[in-house]
Amino acid sequence: MVKLLYSPHLITRKIIPENQEFPMLSLSSRITPEHLFYIRNHFPYPNVDMRTWGLSIEGCVNKPRYFRYHDLLKMPQVTLPVTLECVGDKRSFFQPKTRGVQWGLGAISHAVWTGVRLQDLLLAADVQRNAREVTFEGMDKGVRTDMPGVFSYKRSLSLEHSLHPDTIIALYMNGKPLPYLHGYPARLIVPGWYGMASVKWLHRIVVIEEQFQGPFQVVDYVYDRKPLTPSAPEPVTTIHLNSTIAGPTDQEVLAKGEHCVWGTTISSRDPVDLVEISTDNGNTWLAVSWLDQHEAYSWRRWCWKWTVTEPGTYDMKVRAKDTAGNMQSEMADWNVKGYGYNAIQRIRVYVD
Amino acid sequence: MVKLLYSPHLITRKIIPENQEFPMLSLSSRITPEHLFYIRNHFPYPNVDMRTWGLSIEGCVNKPRYFRYHDLLKMPQVTLPVTLECVGDKRSFFQPKTRGVQWGLGAISHAVWTGVRLQDLLLAADVQRNAREVTFEGMDKGVRTDMPGVFSYKRSLSLEHSLHPDTIIALYMNGKPLPYLHGYPARLIVPGWYGMASVKWLHRIVVIEEQFQGPFQVVDYVYDRKPLTPSAPEPVTTIHLNSTIAGPTDQEVLAKGEHCVWGTTISSRDPVDLVEISTDNGNTWLAVSWLDQHEAYSWRRWCWKWTVTEPGTYDMKVRAKDTAGNMQSEMADWNVKGYGYNAIQRIRVYVD
Repeated sequence: MVKLLYSPHLITRKIIPENQEFPMLSLSSRITPEHLFYIRNHFPYPNVDMRTWGLSIEGCVNKPRYFRYHDLLKMPQVTLPVTLECVGDKRSFFQPKTRGVQWGLGAISHAVWTGVRLQDLLLAADVQRNAREVTFEGMDKGVRTDMPGVFSYKRSLSLEHSLHPDTIIALYMNGKPLPYLHGYPARLIVPGWYGMASVKWLHRIVVIEEQFQGPFQVVDYVYDRKPLTPSAPEPVTTIHLNSTIAGPTDQEVLAKGEHCVWGTTISSRDPVDLVEISTDNGNTWLAVSWLDQHEAYSWRRWCWKWTVTEPGTYDMKVRAKDTAGNMQSEMADWNVKGYGYNAIQRIRVYVD
Repeated sequence: MVKLLYSPHLITRKIIPENQEFPMLSLSSRITPEHLFYIRNHFPYPNVDMRTWGLSIEGCVNKPRYFRYHDLLKMPQVTLPVTLECVGDKRSFFQPKTRGVQWGLGAISHAVWTGVRLQDLLLAADVQRNAREVTFEGMDKGVRTDMPGVFSYKRSLSLEHSLHPDTIIALYMNGKPLPYLHGYPARLIVPGWYGMASVKWLHRIVVIEEQFQGPFQVVDYVYDRKPLTPSAPEPVTTIHLNSTIAGPTDQEVLAKGEHCVWGTTISSRDPVDLVEISTDNGNTWLAVSWLDQHEAYSWRRWCWKWTVTEPGTYDMKVRAKDTAGNMQSEMADWNVKGYGYNAIQRIRVYVD
């Protein structure tokens, strides 16, 4: 009974618009409970009126379509486990610091999404041959700090990626209707990509023949390494190879004895095949044990049993290696907006 | 209606024992709503059985007493607004980092406490002339990392301080029965002192004739500046002069125009008579406006209207000065356990 009192909460990072972080230290199951799933909004919540809501497919299509909620529910559904991660996750670890919400470890969560294939909608609309991209518009809108006007949250994908069988429009999350806070009634899910691609409160899909230039595509969500590297900004796409110690936490104090170090790893290109822990600041490394099977688009939890007999200060690190031989780096790939942090995580723990 | 969706949450810092931070950026009233009041526990929550609960006064007293809950409720009640602050508040800002829960800005909250005077209980018990200190034992207990055995959370106060009319045993918080998470049925409240003195789930008061040497008095909650300063550890007592910018937050991005900078200040010795803000890294300072009256033992909210016409990067600072002329320092008074951080707070904001 006493145990039920312990209620981890989302970590409030911003209130309007609401930005809330999953408390990674509470990681106990592969699937993030809905009430702890991280929330990253660009604008205040939209009003969704289900009496009028519909999803339109317009633009370079021969048969423009308008799907009502029950039309979508009646279509064939697919189910996919997908980890979503904000590309600003771990931003607070960049040095020098970078602008924006100072996410810690938890702008990442995992759920099972069920919905219709975007492919099926596009085929029904009969996409024209000149089509190049598909834009996705959420119902959330508002002002930006850097340019005048009111903007909807809007992103695009290539036509090819839109036709990929794993690009879905989710209607359910973890087997229940998509929560309003996570995009009800319909959310695009782009597996393997950072979360900005998975547009919430989706209501309008427009097929276009040019390259989409909206501010959430060309101003935000680009890796801009100026002045360090004088290269053109590069669009944010897939989730970087990464690993995280969820517990113990940085500066935690432990007693001598047996401890469990636990966390997650993810990579959207090649699967992670090794996660290693060091307790001596990287001099020696030991492989962790898996708590989950490998599954595409999904984080994988691991644990490592640590028996400490000597009191002292321990500098711990975690690193992941994928099947292509890529390994996380010691140094973060700094960029102006603080995106895609995936340097080796370090924590210090004290054993009394 | 849409506005109600925005629900700031406590910031989870640790789960067992539960340690949760008030999201300072949600500061909207002087009184912290109970569900957002910070939580700092040393041990798992105790089982409280009200059929058997009582508060005993023992030790160097001529008339040992045992008060049941209804006995306390029937006694004269006093009401005091008191800000509680964990002495580890802002610990995460220490450089080098220090061990323990990495609190941000919000291990501090304000409430109105109602209960009986400790004085009245001690007088009823007829304290003996050899009495020197009074110890307070909570029902929460457990193990420590640094020594064997099971310990209750236990602290002491001098007899003189125990007899102070503002040292109370709170039964109500913000006009409602003390929430269980905050120490129901009875919590010692030591106004002006850091929160460790305000023992929760109080059930045993022992008057003693020696100096109490429990680990939460002589091991924890001492300023230990070794190896920097080879002096004896100094007990933690009253809340340091401090001021906090609750919003905007560090690294926040703002549009040009008018903004409100808001926050709190506190001091437990001499009242704060000036809070100043700088937007140019401390070259010029401007006084804030008060949102609250001065009230003993209480934080005081302030705001400062800021009209920004030039885009750029702004290094903001806040500092408080008390009526005795003390001013916050640029540098933190580093100590091993990371207590009492009250250096001038700095944030950087960007204006587009």
